[in-house]
Amino acid sequence: MSDDETEPAETPHREAFDHDPIGHARVSAGMSVAELAAEYGEAGIGAANVAEAIDVTGEMFRSEETTVFFGLAGAMVPAGMRAIVADLIREGHIDALVTTGANLTHDAIEAIGGKHHHGTEDHPEYDGPAFDERLREEQVDRIYNVYLPQEHFALFETHLREEVFETVGEETVPIAAFTRELGRANAEVNDREDVPEDPGIAAAAYEHDVPIHAPAIQDSVLGLQAWLRSQVSGFSLDALGDMSALNDLAYEADSSAAFVVGGGVPKNYVLQTMLVTPGAYDYAVQLTMDAPQTGGLSGATLDEARSWGKLETDAESVSVYADATITLPLVVAGALDQLER
Amino acid sequence: MSDDETEPAETPHREAFDHDPIGHARVSAGMSVAELAAEYGEAGIGAANVAEAIDVTGEMFRSEETTVFFGLAGAMVPAGMRAIVADLIREGHIDALVTTGANLTHDAIEAIGGKHHHGTEDHPEYDGPAFDERLREEQVDRIYNVYLPQEHFALFETHLREEVFETVGEETVPIAAFTRELGRANAEVNDREDVPEDPGIAAAAYEHDVPIHAPAIQDSVLGLQAWLRSQVSGFSLDALGDMSALNDLAYEADSSAAFVVGGGVPKNYVLQTMLVTPGAYDYAVQLTMDAPQTGGLSGATLDEARSWGKLETDAESVSVYADATITLPLVVAGALDQLER
Amino acid sequence: MSDDETEPAETPHREAFDHDPIGHARVSAGMSVAELAAEYGEAGIGAANVAEAIDVTGEMFRSEETTVFFGLAGAMVPAGMRAIVADLIREGHIDALVTTGANLTHDAIEAIGGKHHHGTEDHPEYDGPAFDERLREEQVDRIYNVYLPQEHFALFETHLREEVFETVGEETVPIAAFTRELGRANAEVNDREDVPEDPGIAAAAYEHDVPIHAPAIQDSVLGLQAWLRSQVSGFSLDALGDMSALNDLAYEADSSAAFVVGGGVPKNYVLQTMLVTPGAYDYAVQLTMDAPQTGGLSGATLDEARSWGKLETDAESVSVYADATITLPLVVAGALDQLER
Amino acid sequence: MSDDETEPAETPHREAFDHDPIGHARVSAGMSVAELAAEYGEAGIGAANVAEAIDVTGEMFRSEETTVFFGLAGAMVPAGMRAIVADLIREGHIDALVTTGANLTHDAIEAIGGKHHHGTEDHPEYDGPAFDERLREEQVDRIYNVYLPQEHFALFETHLREEVFETVGEETVPIAAFTRELGRANAEVNDREDVPEDPGIAAAAYEHDVPIHAPAIQDSVLGLQAWLRSQVSGFSLDALGDMSALNDLAYEADSSAAFVVGGGVPKNYVLQTMLVTPGAYDYAVQLTMDAPQTGGLSGATLDEARSWGKLETDAESVSVYADATITLPLVVAGALDQLER
Repeated sequence: MSDDETEPAETPHREAFDHDPIGHARVSAGMSVAELAAEYGEAGIGAANVAEAIDVTGEMFRSEETTVFFGLAGAMVPAGMRAIVADLIREGHIDALVTTGANLTHDAIEAIGGKHHHGTEDHPEYDGPAFDERLREEQVDRIYNVYLPQEHFALFETHLREEVFETVGEETVPIAAFTRELGRANAEVNDREDVPEDPGIAAAAYEHDVPIHAPAIQDSVLGLQAWLRSQVSGFSLDALGDMSALNDLAYEADSSAAFVVGGGVPKNYVLQTMLVTPGAYDYAVQLTMDAPQTGGLSGATLDEARSWGKLETDAESVSVYADATITLPLVVAGALDQLER
Repeated sequence: MSDDETEPAETPHREAFDHDPIGHARVSAGMSVAELAAEYGEAGIGAANVAEAIDVTGEMFRSEETTVFFGLAGAMVPAGMRAIVADLIREGHIDALVTTGANLTHDAIEAIGGKHHHGTEDHPEYDGPAFDERLREEQVDRIYNVYLPQEHFALFETHLREEVFETVGEETVPIAAFTRELGRANAEVNDREDVPEDPGIAAAAYEHDVPIHAPAIQDSVLGLQAWLRSQVSGFSLDALGDMSALNDLAYEADSSAAFVVGGGVPKNYVLQTMLVTPGAYDYAVQLTMDAPQTGGLSGATLDEARSWGKLETDAESVSVYADATITLPLVVAGALDQLER
Repeated sequence: MSDDETEPAETPHREAFDHDPIGHARVSAGMSVAELAAEYGEAGIGAANVAEAIDVTGEMFRSEETTVFFGLAGAMVPAGMRAIVADLIREGHIDALVTTGANLTHDAIEAIGGKHHHGTEDHPEYDGPAFDERLREEQVDRIYNVYLPQEHFALFETHLREEVFETVGEETVPIAAFTRELGRANAEVNDREDVPEDPGIAAAAYEHDVPIHAPAIQDSVLGLQAWLRSQVSGFSLDALGDMSALNDLAYEADSSAAFVVGGGVPKNYVLQTMLVTPGAYDYAVQLTMDAPQTGGLSGATLDEARSWGKLETDAESVSVYADATITLPLVVAGALDQLER
Repeated sequence: MSDDETEPAETPHREAFDHDPIGHARVSAGMSVAELAAEYGEAGIGAANVAEAIDVTGEMFRSEETTVFFGLAGAMVPAGMRAIVADLIREGHIDALVTTGANLTHDAIEAIGGKHHHGTEDHPEYDGPAFDERLREEQVDRIYNVYLPQEHFALFETHLREEVFETVGEETVPIAAFTRELGRANAEVNDREDVPEDPGIAAAAYEHDVPIHAPAIQDSVLGLQAWLRSQVSGFSLDALGDMSALNDLAYEADSSAAFVVGGGVPKNYVLQTMLVTPGAYDYAVQLTMDAPQTGGLSGATLDEARSWGKLETDAESVSVYADATITLPLVVAGALDQLER
């Protein structure tokens, strides 16, 4: 709509622009996730990023020589993302897991037969003090729209006391050694009892020798229980004791990939590992709801990580800004499909 | 972890809590979107909302007596969501469309053979002044990661002058009459030429007698062109001229549904129609990235709309807080699948 | 922490980096807003943007030859931002206002003595269906944490019928002519009655000959009332009728500035005016909660607007990503303070 | 606009609504922050929350018997918020600090004379790979719009080696003991040298016997340096060693308050302390950009914390959803002002 709009000016030489037209996504009954992913690839904005995330994830999973560091923050286990992560471990797609004490707590609760629950139908979006007071009286903890009856924490405590603390010993151990014991105990309970359908993330990691790093383990019910144990025994946790193993893994990787769900400590810990190695990530995918504009690391772009040398400057990287409970199943399903081709 | 943690207190009577356990979502290669949707239904947080949105959308599409009002804001057409909406119109799932002049502008550009483009591969997330200055020099407009060469606006202007303004006449017409003429012209160009693969939203609406309301039509290149025309002819647009038809549609509906993509004018206009009818929406789905915490209507919960009488207090409603370019294809694919069962 | 960390490598030549150290913001009892603004200027992330927004706003207000286009979206009037905008008009800092029908509706309700209310103390953050059902029964409309008893809409209707529609006539008029009549009526009621403390935005605009553009006026209770009037009289609104005046203002400006609060139609309409003038904005400030990552215009960076030619490539521009009910008072107070120096 | 709009129905009995009208915020040159805070109190949406946060913070600071737990996440030190927190410690308003290793790293860098820098003027919002590659080449790390030359990390390493690790010894120590040594070293360097203007947070905490908890200390450059030290000496960090002290502080508090800036580990760790005490927080203020809709703990409402028993059900609590670099100075300045009255 410039002055010369009726006789278009000669098109200028274009270097900042190339010719890759956006198509029109189409959907239909009966379509597969792989077909949906292809439609996302036609589209722009976040859909384009999902398609690219599927491609990059497919590449990092396919490559035999690529070591995958997986960061899992947020309330992903209470939200039902547990089996997806456990299956990725079982299928050999995760070489090291960095997560929170909270996810490990809720993973163990499910492993021993506990259950998280959908928010009551009559109060689907409830978010007010009066209702939370009622939940308090009824001894139910709320995680957004997920509810957990408090008695499961007592069962979790028993599990730790009888199955984990007895074997982990009376000394200071690295955090990854403790999470490994937890995984072993979760797996064994599952073998003995038939309650749970899936022994979960820690059990899968134990059985497949994948280390679980939980740098902020104190910051969880699991951490509080560990502290209670340390009050009555020689047991404690060495905060630095498992860092060499993780850093060695990064150091020795021919090629390395970061897949981070949410921000927080898991994201930063996965990325910072590259600060003490000569290399940097060759692939990186992040699924987050945090925006870069707050300046926090959780929402920071993967480009910012290039300035620190955490990503190779030519790394294949993509950020998807959307609820990870939606995008994690989608991206993993799409990537697994690519592996079959 | 209360004082009585080793001997759990008797579980209190629970009314605010029911027993609907969260399952563990699982994904696999080759799975269908319907299977993925079922997995979302097992999960919590946003995934649960996607599953519920699919169910509610399936219901609103299936019900013959339900009138569906569809709000389309944001850069949905530039982002490649055009064929999804056009197909929904063709399949009879949309009874009235409320959208922006911008979406109609970009819909017409594609209808006459213009193309939007993916951001240059070398600059996948570029978002800085230096690059935008280069785009300015190269006469390319940027919409986040979607690029549009400016010459398409000149072709769009020619299309309007030769195909629309000639027939629309020399008087003040309702906006919906003007958007209908645009749809007719888009359809006819498509019949004559073989460039575009899909004549698009306005053409589909024309062919299926679905009205397109664009209350803020001035606020777009389409609106600027209409204004230029009004300067040299008797043509103008009546801002109120098509409101009776929309309100009548709401008034006469046995049952009514709102499906809103993004916020802004399309969302509010769809909802406010119920302020002048005795009824209110029986179904409502919104896909948005705007958070309620800003207090704006765009991110407002559908519960808030109940206080106004825009939704029935017992309406089936669900909000999905995530990028709509990701959730729109997903929810529509899932809902279409349900119709086949 | 590179290999050579104990003997730092020679610092490379630095062009992308300059030496402007971040200071440490300090605060104290009794400090002024101007002092706080100076502290923000020491800081980074969003605080730095607030300081810069104050500077740019101070410049645009100070410059006699700069024409200021002010966009006001969101629920700013219900949220109590009404007097700030009205005062800016009275002080000559706004040359054209683009806003929503909703803000004009709520501005008029306050002008005739109506009141919005704080959310009940006992339910400070309530946001659930059960409570909204109660509000519905009690005939109170909710806008996030702001409540409005519905009888005010009846008084507003009477005001329009008795004070506005009688004088506005029986023909199709431009929207800005209608909003001007509304402003006149608000001002006159205020002169006759002593209820309201401030006649508000539309009255101030009327008294200072500042045009109010409301492109999506249909999309509001004001618009619904206009439509009802059009059903029983020859009155209607011309959607294009005031665009020439706005575009002329932009065309004739020696220098121009955009100050946009929130996104939506007001933001885009302010910016698009430059598409039909040879110039572009020399100054731009936006206060928004919308993130760029959704691809929508509401959260789009001001850099993106450069690619379209809406901003001069060397325009002074700044975006503040935070709740505008917090930042608008802060930025305006800081800018007014700069004018006194 | 109901059917009976011209003869308003009798107003129903209203229990869910009370009569506390919203005023109109006004601003002017020369106003104080306290005056601005009073204007926020008139307003709605986020402004109302800022006013309430100032009141609650004023109360928690004023009350002699209230123990204040302060959580500091995000890039608050790089962003220039360091002196505000240090001053609060010096003035006795913080009894325990929970923060990240990153904030302690950047606090120490400033304590030894290092400087963070504002983003280059010519690239104010740059956020793309090409620019980050240049920063990488120029050895400058980027934190959103804050830049840090990498040589400061080498100086930080020297500081740790010469001033901290020598004195901290050859054994496993609690994290809070290590952060205390860091504070001592920062304070001493500051006494010896005249470079820094403010020895900072850790130094102030050391001098006023305020413990600093950093549960995820490994997840930072400080943590990487600690790990390097542990490789060549008997030094290590006990992850559980300082939890008793923190929990005792909560247990013994007559009244307790949580002030959390950002989410992540600091927020959760401050809140979870109440899981092992019979009491719960009586006051809580959170300043965050994270929305509750993601389901993560970072954006979770303080109501959700009531269901867990982390807050008393009748606690005075308020959440401000906006950039904390803007709201922290504002809320603290407002609260300090209230203390003077």
